[in-house]
Amino acid sequence: MPSRFVIGVDIGGTKLAAGVVDERLQIHRRIQRSMRGQDTPALLDTIASAVQELVNTTPGEIDAVGFGIPSLIDRRTGTSVVAVNLPLTDVRFGALMAERLDLAVFVDNDGNLAALAEHRAGAGVGVEHMLLIGLGTGIAGGLILGGELYRGWLGAGAELGHMVIDLNGPRCQGNCPNHGCFEAMASGTALAREARRIASERPDTELGRALVDGRELEGPLVTELAHDGDPAALAVLELIGERLGVALANYVNIFNPELIVVGGGVMRAGEMLLAPARAEMLRRALPPSRDVVRVVAAEFGHEAGMVGAAALALDGLAARQAQR
Amino acid sequence: MPSRFVIGVDIGGTKLAAGVVDERLQIHRRIQRSMRGQDTPALLDTIASAVQELVNTTPGEIDAVGFGIPSLIDRRTGTSVVAVNLPLTDVRFGALMAERLDLAVFVDNDGNLAALAEHRAGAGVGVEHMLLIGLGTGIAGGLILGGELYRGWLGAGAELGHMVIDLNGPRCQGNCPNHGCFEAMASGTALAREARRIASERPDTELGRALVDGRELEGPLVTELAHDGDPAALAVLELIGERLGVALANYVNIFNPELIVVGGGVMRAGEMLLAPARAEMLRRALPPSRDVVRVVAAEFGHEAGMVGAAALALDGLAARQAQR
Repeated sequence: MPSRFVIGVDIGGTKLAAGVVDERLQIHRRIQRSMRGQDTPALLDTIASAVQELVNTTPGEIDAVGFGIPSLIDRRTGTSVVAVNLPLTDVRFGALMAERLDLAVFVDNDGNLAALAEHRAGAGVGVEHMLLIGLGTGIAGGLILGGELYRGWLGAGAELGHMVIDLNGPRCQGNCPNHGCFEAMASGTALAREARRIASERPDTELGRALVDGRELEGPLVTELAHDGDPAALAVLELIGERLGVALANYVNIFNPELIVVGGGVMRAGEMLLAPARAEMLRRALPPSRDVVRVVAAEFGHEAGMVGAAALALDGLAARQAQR
Repeated sequence: MPSRFVIGVDIGGTKLAAGVVDERLQIHRRIQRSMRGQDTPALLDTIASAVQELVNTTPGEIDAVGFGIPSLIDRRTGTSVVAVNLPLTDVRFGALMAERLDLAVFVDNDGNLAALAEHRAGAGVGVEHMLLIGLGTGIAGGLILGGELYRGWLGAGAELGHMVIDLNGPRCQGNCPNHGCFEAMASGTALAREARRIASERPDTELGRALVDGRELEGPLVTELAHDGDPAALAVLELIGERLGVALANYVNIFNPELIVVGGGVMRAGEMLLAPARAEMLRRALPPSRDVVRVVAAEFGHEAGMVGAAALALDGLAARQAQR
C-alpha cells in the first residue's frame, strides 16, 4: 500500500474535479462539483467543501492538496492575476484555501499541471526538455526544462498559446489583448470559426450541410465528419494542423526540446491534426532540432489537471521535508 | 593580480577577434585576423594560429580557450551543424581545435555567448531569467534561465530569431527554410529592405533622396537620418521597432523574464527602436509579465562575443575542477 495520499483538484471554467491520489499518481476516489454562476465567496466555499469532503471520507491521512486553476498566477503573492472564466482575478487563492483547510496548499495553473502529469506519469516520463500544448477552447501551455517545471520570474510564464504567429491575425479571446496569437489561430474556438467559414464555402459537403441544418460546427462534429472522409471537415483539420505546425516550428527553434506533447479536447482528431502539424513543422524549423523532436498525443485526457495537481502537492511536500 | 587567464575568440562571418581575458572578464590583449574567402582547412589554421600567438606572447599561464561560432551546434558530437556564412557545416570544430592546441577547448554559438557576457558582466548581472536578442544582419538569441545558459536538448536551442511572427511573411535568409521569422521581419536585412520600400514611396524625404542618389540604405544611414528628424527614416525605425515589439510580447508571454537585453549593430538606433518596441509589447503581452519586464540596450558592443567566449572557458574550467 502506498503510504501517502494527497488531493488533486482541477478547477475548470464551470466545474471542479477532485481526487484522492497516491504517491504513484493513481487516483483512488473522485468527486465533481458544479461552480456555474457562483460569485467569489460561493466559489471558494464550493472548492473548500469538496476538498473537506474527500478528507473526511478517506481512511488514512491526507497531507496536502494541490489546485490547478485556469489563471495566470503571480507567485510573489500567490495571487491569481487574470482568470478568464472564473471570478478569481486578484484573489489570493492559495492563502484563502490554507485558511479554510487544515492541509498544506499548493497552487499552479492548468497548463503547468498538465505538463507535470505527462512528465511524471504520461508521455514524457524521463524526458529532460518537453513542452505541453493543450488545445481546448483556449490553448494551455506548460514547460519542463531540465526536468523541472519552468514558470518564469513571477510564475506567469509558459503562456504558450499567446505567441503571435500572424501579426495581422484575428483578435485573441478573453483577457488577451493580442492579435494573431497561436490561440486565436489554432484553438478549438478558431477551429469552429474556420469550420463555419469553410462550410459556407462548400455547401455540397457534409460539413456544409451541417451548417445549413443549424448544427454546432465544433471540434467533435468536425472530427466525426473528417473520420468519415468529408473533404471540407478534413480541410478544416488540415488548416488548423498547419497552424499548429507553425507554432511547433517556433517552439522547436526556441527550445530544441526532446518532446512536444499535444493534448486537450481538440486532440480527439489525433493524427488528422498531428500529421499536417508535423509536416509544417519540418518545412519551417531548423536542423538538427526539427529532425530529432518527437511530437506525440498526450496520454492523460480530462484527468491531466487532477493528476498534475496531486503531483504538485507531492513535490511540495518533498521540498518542505528536504528543507527540514 | 588575477591568477588565471583564458582566451576568448569571437568568430564572425569574415574575421575573428581574440583576446586574453582575466577572471573578472577584463580584456588584456586583443588581436584580429581576416578569414575572408578561406576554405575549411585554411580557416582552422587561421583560428588556431591566432590562439597560439596569444598563448606564446602572454606572460603567465593560459588554461583554456572559448570559441564563439556563428553556427548551430549539436553538443552530442561537438559538431557545427549549420553555419550560414562560414565553411563550418558538419565540422567537429571543438575536437579539431583541441587537436591543434594544448588547451582545454569550449565552444558555443555567438548568441549564447553574448547572453553570457551580459549576464556575467553587463546589463544582466544578478538576473535569474533573461533573454538576449542580437539585431544584426541576422538575429542572434541567447537564454539565461534559472541563472544558467539554456541550450536545449542538443545545444541547438535559443534560436530566437527564427520564430514566425507573420506566417505569410517573407522568406527568411541563409539556411533557414522558414517564412515570416522575426529575423525576416526585423533584422538589419529587413530594415534595409523596408528602408528601400519606404524611400521609394516618399521621394521628398532625406531617405527618398538618398535612394535616388544610390546610397546604401542600411542601418547606419537610416539611424543617422532618423537622428536628424527625417520622417521616412523615423518611420522605418518605428516599423522595425513595432515588429521587435511583437517578438518581445511573445517572449514575455513564453518566459515571463525579468529582463530582455537587445544588442547588435542595429541597436545603434537605441531608443528610436526600443521605445516603439516597448509600446507594442505592452499592447500585446499579458499581465503581470508585461508590466514587470525590463527591456534594455546591451552594455557590450562588438566585444560581447569575445567576453562571452572567455566566460564560457572560465565556467568550463570551474566545472571540470568541481568534478575532480
